[in-house]
Amino acid sequence: MQQVNLGIIGGGTVGSGVYHHLQVNGALLESRLGIKIGLRRIAVKALDEPRPYAIPESLMTTDWTTVVNDPEVHVVIELVGGTTIAKTIILTALKLGKPVITANKALISAYGEELFAAAQKHGTNLYYEASVAGGIPIIKVLREGFVGNRITHLYGIVNGTCNYILTRMKLEGSDFEPTLRDAQHLGYAEADPSLDIDGFDSEHKIGILGSLAHGIWIRPGDIHVEGIRPVGKTDIEFAGKLGYTIKLLGVVKSVEKAVKSKKAERKSIQVSVYPALIPNTHVLASVNHVFNAVFVRGDVVGDTLFYGRGAGKDATASAVLSDIADAALDLKHQTRRRIPPFVSHASDTEVLPIDDAVCRYYVRLSVIDKPGTLARIATILAASKIGISSVIQPEGHEGESVPLILMIHDAPNSAMKKALAKISKLPVVKAPPVLLRVETFD
Amino acid sequence: MQQVNLGIIGGGTVGSGVYHHLQVNGALLESRLGIKIGLRRIAVKALDEPRPYAIPESLMTTDWTTVVNDPEVHVVIELVGGTTIAKTIILTALKLGKPVITANKALISAYGEELFAAAQKHGTNLYYEASVAGGIPIIKVLREGFVGNRITHLYGIVNGTCNYILTRMKLEGSDFEPTLRDAQHLGYAEADPSLDIDGFDSEHKIGILGSLAHGIWIRPGDIHVEGIRPVGKTDIEFAGKLGYTIKLLGVVKSVEKAVKSKKAERKSIQVSVYPALIPNTHVLASVNHVFNAVFVRGDVVGDTLFYGRGAGKDATASAVLSDIADAALDLKHQTRRRIPPFVSHASDTEVLPIDDAVCRYYVRLSVIDKPGTLARIATILAASKIGISSVIQPEGHEGESVPLILMIHDAPNSAMKKALAKISKLPVVKAPPVLLRVETFD
Repeated sequence: MQQVNLGIIGGGTVGSGVYHHLQVNGALLESRLGIKIGLRRIAVKALDEPRPYAIPESLMTTDWTTVVNDPEVHVVIELVGGTTIAKTIILTALKLGKPVITANKALISAYGEELFAAAQKHGTNLYYEASVAGGIPIIKVLREGFVGNRITHLYGIVNGTCNYILTRMKLEGSDFEPTLRDAQHLGYAEADPSLDIDGFDSEHKIGILGSLAHGIWIRPGDIHVEGIRPVGKTDIEFAGKLGYTIKLLGVVKSVEKAVKSKKAERKSIQVSVYPALIPNTHVLASVNHVFNAVFVRGDVVGDTLFYGRGAGKDATASAVLSDIADAALDLKHQTRRRIPPFVSHASDTEVLPIDDAVCRYYVRLSVIDKPGTLARIATILAASKIGISSVIQPEGHEGESVPLILMIHDAPNSAMKKALAKISKLPVVKAPPVLLRVETFD
Repeated sequence: MQQVNLGIIGGGTVGSGVYHHLQVNGALLESRLGIKIGLRRIAVKALDEPRPYAIPESLMTTDWTTVVNDPEVHVVIELVGGTTIAKTIILTALKLGKPVITANKALISAYGEELFAAAQKHGTNLYYEASVAGGIPIIKVLREGFVGNRITHLYGIVNGTCNYILTRMKLEGSDFEPTLRDAQHLGYAEADPSLDIDGFDSEHKIGILGSLAHGIWIRPGDIHVEGIRPVGKTDIEFAGKLGYTIKLLGVVKSVEKAVKSKKAERKSIQVSVYPALIPNTHVLASVNHVFNAVFVRGDVVGDTLFYGRGAGKDATASAVLSDIADAALDLKHQTRRRIPPFVSHASDTEVLPIDDAVCRYYVRLSVIDKPGTLARIATILAASKIGISSVIQPEGHEGESVPLILMIHDAPNSAMKKALAKISKLPVVKAPPVLLRVETFD
């Protein structure tokens, strides 16, 4: 039986997870593949750093170069994260013609094209199933399972921290700040939560998925990003009354025609991350706690959903093991670039500026309850040709500040933003408006 | 660019769907693969049979042998269905060393081992992604995405007709027979509905998925099958009151220890199809109408769900296109058996007889409302060491026949069956009991 040897860089959460599951399921993997899988060495930051699964000291080194350069290491697995040393490690391995496996979403999202070009130049491959949505094999599904499909819509709940916080806010009727603090206390959110909470982690993942779906490489800067900080318990409560659940969604939508496009011959896609109201009857509304899910609509397959744990030592290891299998098969059969890391196939597609994107909205205003308030607001919206589909105004006392909820028909983002700026300046409006999008999956 | 030519046998729903989507997305597929895909010929039953998408007459023939034997046909796609001529077609193509793609669940389920052996003997491959759950790439997910996992639990809603009927019964409060008739009228159920309604279609699919998950080939005869005919609107209503939804489930469960196993050293799996109550909070409970879903628990990845359309001209074509891509890549790279159709890897596993399977139950009895009725029933259950977890008995008038619902703790099937036979003979029990299983996904 052929033997393929692995070298792992990174012995933390994911690295020790991969080590552990190779011990437990290595024989099963080998019998399924007909290939012997050897583990040569694991480079770690420090031999005694805390890790969820123990690694024998004899397997560890603190010098990653000895692992990458070891001629007996056939596949390099980069699990250190970040965009500096990780990039060097990957480029070094690719230059040696070694296939590389990575779980590094930030790196692939930002430097994907450069890394893919290096892999091509050196006749090898880069595998990154573990970079998006942990254990959900969404990269394989998009590139192989749906290879015959044009992906018209893709919506992802791809950040477990945000989904955990929003789920608890809904179930407990709690507000954002205390729930975040509790999530931090329980280890579901980082001490510096910005990467998750402000949508940047979702941005990396949704950029990769959008790129694979549409055949143009979408860079982080091309993506409009809003996080979940503006979502209050009042919003979750009112959304619930209207039959909706609020989720942080990554959105990749083919747009039939841009609102004011000067290049009508080009296809547009909207690529964004924002908190959105989704109907309770939609499967995505049932995706709770730390779970992730990606909803994909293909022109052939129709509507599909892929659900699972998006992070963690075990789920991410499952994706790494799948890439190990593909890399080992590709080495055995000498087909290193059977499926290249990225195939560009849609140079006529461009990312739509968020200003031109059209959707429905939920607006929460804090207004003084007095005659004429609603009329003033409705007049501003009407002047911008923005239609109101429904209004909720809880009963209050004249002169008091009360919430006013408006559900808005399809309107361009730019028009909505301008109208809202005018509305904010009305003396009866007492706080900055909360603007959330409504996705109906039509 | 290398060219791979296809020959399709079957020009009905799926065959014409594959033809149509190759026309629409063929160029996209080619640019993603770097392989030119040619369609040589489609063999049909009759040139003028009705089909959802038109096929040009110049492409059609009524003689399948000319397609299979055409030296310019590199890949044969069998889409005629059934287990007679389809088997001959596939064996003929395999003998010629040609890779074969099929959507034929009944054939793979019954004759998988024979067909796989023929593929191996002739150094070629058999691809069958389209045979289970239509557009959901579940075969690829199990064999490749979860290659590093031991699959401990797999639950599938894999029959769209049953799910459509059960969903409508729940939403409309309707009974089984009229809903079935309406489903037949609307084309969601066949004139002879037995294959779907009595669980045999699910049996074929769950046998294939169970085989791939556990590495032993599970034949249809090894699978315990119950259909949805016994499910009444009363059951759906009471299940709802208790927080459950009734679905036809294919179940593949690793069993920790068999109840009265004489071969304690062997691993057991339960493989069954039956209507089951599932908690409304579980994602499978939100899978409605004709949609399918497969819930997979792996020892590494944890809980996952894959959702989409399980049948039809388009969703099934999506799976065939995915197999076309794999077959074309394998031809291009001369790696015809890169991933063999089935890898046996667990000869120490056996299918547990249903009598030995342990689970929770829902029992609906029709009893005379008089003092002592519940006591008599509870005494029989207690004598069999079967525990009642809850009871619902709607208020009635003494002497009337009323429903009595019992929720039963974990008990072996054999014990439950025997106790129920005794209960049925009580003079106060007025109709055959309805016994449904309860799955809690623990």
